[in-house]
Amino acid sequence: MSNAYELMSDADLDAAIAAIESDAEHLKALGLKLDMARGKPSPEQTALSRPMLDLIDSTTTLTDGGLPVDNYGVPDGLPSARALAAQILGVDPANVVVNGSSSLNLMHDLVCHAYTHGIGGNKPWCQQGRVKFLCPSPGYDRHFKVSAHYGLENVPVPMLDDGPDMDTVVRLVESDPAVKGIWCVPKYANPTGITYSDDVVRRFANLRPAAPDFRIFWDNAYAVHGFTEKDTPLLNIFDALAEVGGDDLVYEFGSTAKVTFPSSGMAYVTASAADMAEIRGAFSVMRVSPEKFSQLAHVLFLKNLDGVKAHMRAHAAIVGPRFALVEQKLTEGLGELGCATWTHPTGGYFVSFDGPEGSAKAIVKLAADLGVKMTPAGATWPSGKDPHDTNIRIAPTYPSLDELSRALDVFVVAVKLVSARLAKVARA
Amino acid sequence: MSNAYELMSDADLDAAIAAIESDAEHLKALGLKLDMARGKPSPEQTALSRPMLDLIDSTTTLTDGGLPVDNYGVPDGLPSARALAAQILGVDPANVVVNGSSSLNLMHDLVCHAYTHGIGGNKPWCQQGRVKFLCPSPGYDRHFKVSAHYGLENVPVPMLDDGPDMDTVVRLVESDPAVKGIWCVPKYANPTGITYSDDVVRRFANLRPAAPDFRIFWDNAYAVHGFTEKDTPLLNIFDALAEVGGDDLVYEFGSTAKVTFPSSGMAYVTASAADMAEIRGAFSVMRVSPEKFSQLAHVLFLKNLDGVKAHMRAHAAIVGPRFALVEQKLTEGLGELGCATWTHPTGGYFVSFDGPEGSAKAIVKLAADLGVKMTPAGATWPSGKDPHDTNIRIAPTYPSLDELSRALDVFVVAVKLVSARLAKVARA
Repeated sequence: MSNAYELMSDADLDAAIAAIESDAEHLKALGLKLDMARGKPSPEQTALSRPMLDLIDSTTTLTDGGLPVDNYGVPDGLPSARALAAQILGVDPANVVVNGSSSLNLMHDLVCHAYTHGIGGNKPWCQQGRVKFLCPSPGYDRHFKVSAHYGLENVPVPMLDDGPDMDTVVRLVESDPAVKGIWCVPKYANPTGITYSDDVVRRFANLRPAAPDFRIFWDNAYAVHGFTEKDTPLLNIFDALAEVGGDDLVYEFGSTAKVTFPSSGMAYVTASAADMAEIRGAFSVMRVSPEKFSQLAHVLFLKNLDGVKAHMRAHAAIVGPRFALVEQKLTEGLGELGCATWTHPTGGYFVSFDGPEGSAKAIVKLAADLGVKMTPAGATWPSGKDPHDTNIRIAPTYPSLDELSRALDVFVVAVKLVSARLAKVARA
Repeated sequence: MSNAYELMSDADLDAAIAAIESDAEHLKALGLKLDMARGKPSPEQTALSRPMLDLIDSTTTLTDGGLPVDNYGVPDGLPSARALAAQILGVDPANVVVNGSSSLNLMHDLVCHAYTHGIGGNKPWCQQGRVKFLCPSPGYDRHFKVSAHYGLENVPVPMLDDGPDMDTVVRLVESDPAVKGIWCVPKYANPTGITYSDDVVRRFANLRPAAPDFRIFWDNAYAVHGFTEKDTPLLNIFDALAEVGGDDLVYEFGSTAKVTFPSSGMAYVTASAADMAEIRGAFSVMRVSPEKFSQLAHVLFLKNLDGVKAHMRAHAAIVGPRFALVEQKLTEGLGELGCATWTHPTGGYFVSFDGPEGSAKAIVKLAADLGVKMTPAGATWPSGKDPHDTNIRIAPTYPSLDELSRALDVFVVAVKLVSARLAKVARA
C-alpha cells in the first residue's frame, strides 16, 4: 500500500501536519505518564497466581519423591517439578534440569560455560578468536546482550513470517565454523509473535553445522502463552531431531515467569543426554543446589500440563482484549494511511511495528515527549542498531485497558506526525 | 604429646591392634549406615524455620518500599531484605545486593566475571596467563573448586589458630601480581572453626596488593552461627578498611542458608561503592532480576538482627550438644593416646581433625567400611591433596545425637586402628 502522506499535494500535506501537530499539543497538555515498554504481566495477571501462595505452610510435607525440599541437594530439581517442565516442553524428564527462577540466567550460564570451557570437549570460545552468534531480527534484546557481553559477534538474520530466513541460517551455520549459536524464540516470537513453521523447525533439526560446538538456543518462553481460542502448535524440535537421527544440537529453555510470577517462576533447560551430562557438570560448580520451595509450590498449584493450560486460559482472558485493542487502534488510526505495518500475534507478549524508513527513533522520542514510554527503537536488533530504523516493539500487557487505549492514541499520533514530516522532508 | 602406640613394646602394640580389630569387627557386624560428611542443618534445625512458611499467603501485600515482589525488576533486591543483610554484615545497605539463594553462586559469578571481563578495567584474568588464588588450608572445598574450575592456580596457605598465616599472605599478595584473590571464611571457619583475630583482619585491610585486580573473597557464611553462651566477635573488615582509608579490596558474602533453609535462604554480597557498581553491571546481564518472595518471607520472619540472633539461639540449642558430644567422644577415645588433635569450635558447622601423618585417607576408608561416611580425606586442601594426609573434616550437625554418638565410636576405633598400624609399619 502506498504512503498516503507521500501522495498528498504539498498544501494537503502541510495541512495534515498542522492538524496532527494540533492533536499532539492536546495530548501533551494531558501530562500523561504511560508505559508500553515492558513485556511483563499486569497486576490482574499476577493476581491469578496468588492462590499458589496458600499451598505451602508450616504443616506441608517438605519432600518430593523422597528428596528434601528444605535442605541442600537435588541439583536437578525436584522430580515432580522436572516432570511438570518435561510435560510443558514435551520431552523426557530424565533430560530436564529445573534450577533457579530465570531461564535467561540459565541461557547466560551456558553461553558463559561455552565461552570459558567450551562445548563437547572443543576449545573454549574465548580461545577461538572470532565467534559469531546468529540473531534473527527483530528479536529479543536481552538475548543479544548475553552474546554481546562475551564479545561474540551478533549477526542479524532476517525474520520472516514463518521463522528466521532459513536459507541464510543454513548457509551461515553449515559454511562458517565461527558460527556457534543462534537465538530462537520459536513460538509467539519476541517481538513479532509468529510461530516457526514445521518446515522451519525441520530445517533447524537438519542443520549440519560447520562447528561441532554449535548449539541452537531454543528459548521456548511462550510455549503455553496463546491468547486466542486456538493455540498455534509448534513442532517439537526434539521430535524433529529424532526423525533425522540428530543428537547434540539444541538447548531448549523455558520458565513459568509468565505463567505464575515474573522473577519467581521455575526455570528449566533440556537437551540431549550427552549435552545434559555436560550441563550438569558445569552447573555443579556454577549453581550448586536449587531453591526448591518454589518448585514444590508450582507443582502443587499447576499440577500438570492440563493445569497449566487452564491457568493460561485465565491469562488469555486478560491479555487477549489488550492485543485486540492494539489491533483496533492501529487499524483505525493508521490502516488507511499505508505508512506502517504491524504483526497480528495470537500469543506471546508483543506486537512488532514497522513505520517508514528512518522513523522509529523519532516516533519513540515523540511518544515519550507526549507521555508514553516505548521500548527504545533499535532494541530489537543486535547492538540496538536497526539498519532501516523502522521497528518498534509494542508491549501491551502491563497497562490497564484504559491506559493502553490512551497510550495507543498517543502512539498513533506520533506515527502519523513522524510519517508526514518524513514525507515533507523527502520533497525538500 | 607423644603417640602412645609408638611408645609401646612390640608385644603390647600387637595386642592393642588385635583388641581394636576385634572392636572394629563388632562395629562392622552392626551394619551401620551413618553420615558425618555433610555440613548441613539437621531436620530439627530446618523445622525451626517452618513458621516462616505461614507468613506469605494469597492475602499478603506484595510490595516492599513501593517496589513489586511479584513482578520483574528490583535487581538489587527488596529494600527491607537489603537492610536485613546489611545489619547482619554491619555495612551500608546502599552497598548490598541480595540476589538468589546461594552465596556460593554469587562468589562463582564474580570469579567468572573477573575471568571473562576483568576487575576494575583491568585485563580479564583469562587473558593474563598464570593467575593464582590463595587457599588457606584446611579450607572449604567448594571455594577451591570454583577457582580451579577457571584454571586458576590454587596456592595453599597455612591456617593458624587466629586465621591464615598472614606473613605468607602479605608476602605473596604484595609481591606477586599473579595473585588475584584469596578465599576466606573469617568467622567460625570451615573446617577449623576458628575466628580471625583483629590483628589478622587489620592485616588483610592493610594489604597493598601487587595486582590492582586482587580481591579478598570474604565468605562470612557463619556470621551469626555461634553455639555457645558467648559469641566470638569478628572485626568488621570494612571498618578496618575505613581505619586505613582502603577502598576496593573486599567482596563480602553471606546467606541465610544455615539460618532458615539450605538452598532456599537469601544470598547477598557487599563491597565498596565502586566495586558494587561493577558488580551490578555484571549482574544486569548475568542474573537479571531476583526471586523476591523468599526475600519478603525472610524479612517478615527474621525482622532484624535481633530476630536473627534469637533464631540462632534456637539453632545453638540443637547444634551445641552435638559439638559437645564430638569433644567428649574424641577426648574419651583418643585424649590419652597422643595420636591426634582436633579443633574446639564455638560456632560454625565443623570440627577439623588431624591424625598421624599419612593416616587420613586410611581412617576415612576404614570408617566407611564400618558404616560411617566422612568427608573425603584431602577435601579440605586444593585439588584434594593434603600434603601430609592428616586432615579430616567432621560434620556433626546433620545426624541425630544418637546416630552421631555411634558414628563417633566408629570414627575413634578407625583412628586408633590406623594409628596403631602406622606405628607397627614404622618399625618394620
